[in-house]
Amino acid sequence: VICRCLLRADLIMTERVSLDSETLVYDPKVPVLRQFVDYVARFHDGGDSPRQYLERCLEKIESLEPKIGAFVHLDIEGARYAADEATARYRAGRSASQIDGMPIGIKDIIATRGLPTEMNSPIFAGFRPRRDAAAVVALRNAGAFVLGKTVTTEFACGRSGPTKNPFDETRTPGGSSSGSAAAVGVGILPAALGTQTQASLIRPASYCGAYAFKPSHRLLRVDGIAPLAQSLDHLGVIGASLRDIWEVTRVIAALGPEPGGPAISIGEFPAPARPRRLIRLETEGWCETDPVSREEFDRALATIAQGGIEILDRYRDPRIAELETQIELTGRAALDIFAHEAQWPLRAYLDCGADLVGERIKELVAIAEKLPRRAYERALSLRASLRNSVAALSGVADGFLSLASSGPAPKGLTHTGSRSYGVPWTMLGAPSIALPVLTAERLPLGLQVMGFSEADSATFAISRWIATTLMD
Amino acid sequence: VICRCLLRADLIMTERVSLDSETLVYDPKVPVLRQFVDYVARFHDGGDSPRQYLERCLEKIESLEPKIGAFVHLDIEGARYAADEATARYRAGRSASQIDGMPIGIKDIIATRGLPTEMNSPIFAGFRPRRDAAAVVALRNAGAFVLGKTVTTEFACGRSGPTKNPFDETRTPGGSSSGSAAAVGVGILPAALGTQTQASLIRPASYCGAYAFKPSHRLLRVDGIAPLAQSLDHLGVIGASLRDIWEVTRVIAALGPEPGGPAISIGEFPAPARPRRLIRLETEGWCETDPVSREEFDRALATIAQGGIEILDRYRDPRIAELETQIELTGRAALDIFAHEAQWPLRAYLDCGADLVGERIKELVAIAEKLPRRAYERALSLRASLRNSVAALSGVADGFLSLASSGPAPKGLTHTGSRSYGVPWTMLGAPSIALPVLTAERLPLGLQVMGFSEADSATFAISRWIATTLMD
Repeated sequence: VICRCLLRADLIMTERVSLDSETLVYDPKVPVLRQFVDYVARFHDGGDSPRQYLERCLEKIESLEPKIGAFVHLDIEGARYAADEATARYRAGRSASQIDGMPIGIKDIIATRGLPTEMNSPIFAGFRPRRDAAAVVALRNAGAFVLGKTVTTEFACGRSGPTKNPFDETRTPGGSSSGSAAAVGVGILPAALGTQTQASLIRPASYCGAYAFKPSHRLLRVDGIAPLAQSLDHLGVIGASLRDIWEVTRVIAALGPEPGGPAISIGEFPAPARPRRLIRLETEGWCETDPVSREEFDRALATIAQGGIEILDRYRDPRIAELETQIELTGRAALDIFAHEAQWPLRAYLDCGADLVGERIKELVAIAEKLPRRAYERALSLRASLRNSVAALSGVADGFLSLASSGPAPKGLTHTGSRSYGVPWTMLGAPSIALPVLTAERLPLGLQVMGFSEADSATFAISRWIATTLMD
Repeated sequence: VICRCLLRADLIMTERVSLDSETLVYDPKVPVLRQFVDYVARFHDGGDSPRQYLERCLEKIESLEPKIGAFVHLDIEGARYAADEATARYRAGRSASQIDGMPIGIKDIIATRGLPTEMNSPIFAGFRPRRDAAAVVALRNAGAFVLGKTVTTEFACGRSGPTKNPFDETRTPGGSSSGSAAAVGVGILPAALGTQTQASLIRPASYCGAYAFKPSHRLLRVDGIAPLAQSLDHLGVIGASLRDIWEVTRVIAALGPEPGGPAISIGEFPAPARPRRLIRLETEGWCETDPVSREEFDRALATIAQGGIEILDRYRDPRIAELETQIELTGRAALDIFAHEAQWPLRAYLDCGADLVGERIKELVAIAEKLPRRAYERALSLRASLRNSVAALSGVADGFLSLASSGPAPKGLTHTGSRSYGVPWTMLGAPSIALPVLTAERLPLGLQVMGFSEADSATFAISRWIATTLMD
């Protein structure tokens, strides 16, 4: 029996209810996700321990990992050792942080000391860095540990990996943070690191029924992560709840931003905040979106509106209509920026041997080679205009809503789905959050809450309110 | 006999005059530097060729390299092959650029395909990247070629290398672009790439009697160059003349800026421009500067003033006095920014084994570890204020003058000299140029011309005028 009162987005305290792994049918109101931070009180009072928590994750891995293939590498022995250490810290009353003892998945383009970091590329087959990425250093210092490296597309932009969508094995989990989203979505892990240069956090989270957070650009340090396009690369978190994501983000953000990044302080988990007004965005993705998903989206917005929230959109407000037009123009610009900036790391891989690199990467380098410098500059100025237009709306509304993907996960494993819904806020470099609150074709579908530049806390606050409103 | 009319900074067409390598005494009016671009007309008309030019460089290497040790690795065979190809292009009337056939030195923290890139670290001993850094790709595409890798301090911030000052073997060539400055200063090479995170282009150029250009921050792409501190790292050029430096810069700048960098167009070599007003800066370095060098500086400024240029300074203008105070405060801030940002690459090296890494690098990581995040933020805000103060003077004067180092090269090879004169314009991220026009203790001493943010061309234009005025 599923108790609805337990389903509030950030407060689910139950473990998964009986769920036959043979007939994994998605229902956003059924708690599959495996929160962590809400267990901390029980770790303190001895009713549970990080080691026991880890063992439950491992049971789930045993039953599901063979089917979904979310991991490239598991470090079960290391994880047990770290979980025992965390358990001892809780017992001694000196836990290191809110995520002490948290098992984490690390996208396989992020360096982990002594663990393989292969980037889904034969060039890095067997590569074990002697260093941790800065974010991993921060997580380990906070008592969290790496349970495994999660599948990525090749260098987060090329060939897709073997991961399957946990709710339909014939469908993609989305990319490029494929394994992170699948492992969190199916309840193996409470949180996993991912990256987004186009739509690589928000889209797989949408397809796999997980929460995801793409922070403000350069809020989190990316040292030790394979770079693609510097002005678009974001480190972010896929998690089982907004709170888990927040606490992981908080630990990494304490390192300070990337040079030039925003000096935002990430403090206590923000209380839910009821927005006054929200802006409904269709974006370029709307024309690719199936009717069921469109209806789901509009139904969710109607529910939110019933709470007394005013919703502005392109049909009723000329400012929004103008913004939608601008967003439609940015799709091509985003590709130009991506290809131009990513060409140098990608050429370095190509220099290792053309046969070692997938076709998509060759295409991207070819796009960059043909791209006149003026086209790149035009793309930058389109982006600057978009930023100004969005900033100009900051007095008008508290945030934006769109879908997180153009529908549920599409069939097939070679293509990771449309990037359209992720691109605009990646271009803006402003915070966006995927909430696993919709469903279509009995599969997960995310709602995307998008905030203003550097308003990461405020975006969490309204996301909490929205998730609660839609799931109650 | 030295013909003074040939000595104008950018127009020296003679090769070096008779210069006994046993008694290498520096005289800024004696042409030691080996220009390239001015030979291009002779390559076209067949009176000279890139191959002959290269052979003259190689003769110089044979006589001087054993004494100064500017190179870690020479690729003489590859250079001859590339010079022959360039020679053929000139003969066929289809040369690739103004630097077609130019032999270049590449600081050994910059990746070169197939050539060792060892960063003066045992961690990278024997490392031959399969890629070229972006700047090297651009240079090769323009017909230039890598004659050798030049000595750097360890990762451009640690242990110094074996290079000696060409004008006194008991003295440092400066760092971290030690080999690049020594090789250019002694007339082996027309140009070499270097980098500056504190003072690593301007200072060694000052000590070795070469020109150097630290462009606007992020004007030149740094892909494939070992990073230190992202918001301070600059790729730049040390060269035998302003023109050689300009043409090398132009080829690299055509790749486009680093993401977020200035969209400055680097076009034709700027004509000399007589400034109306210049600002004399003492900076933090003045108190370390010996009396002879101070006099040299003030004599040069008097010569410039005789040309009818008004010179403002801290003693006569309260705005400049205030700026000087601000600059004095930035020294500590620069170290904080440097250590905080560089800690991640440096930790990665430390993770390879503490015994493989020099003491200075351990010190820097220790500084970063102890540095409160607030101190880094305070340093950033000091830098922002400094930028505003300098920008506010853009209507007041055409540029700034200071020394390029606190005197001639100091004795000893383990310390690479004071960084004081380099730091302020590195912090600003604005262009600065070292001119080898002064002398003290019969050794080279550079004059530094500093421009406003993104005014790279204008800074060259006034530098040409100043160099000509002082050397005529």
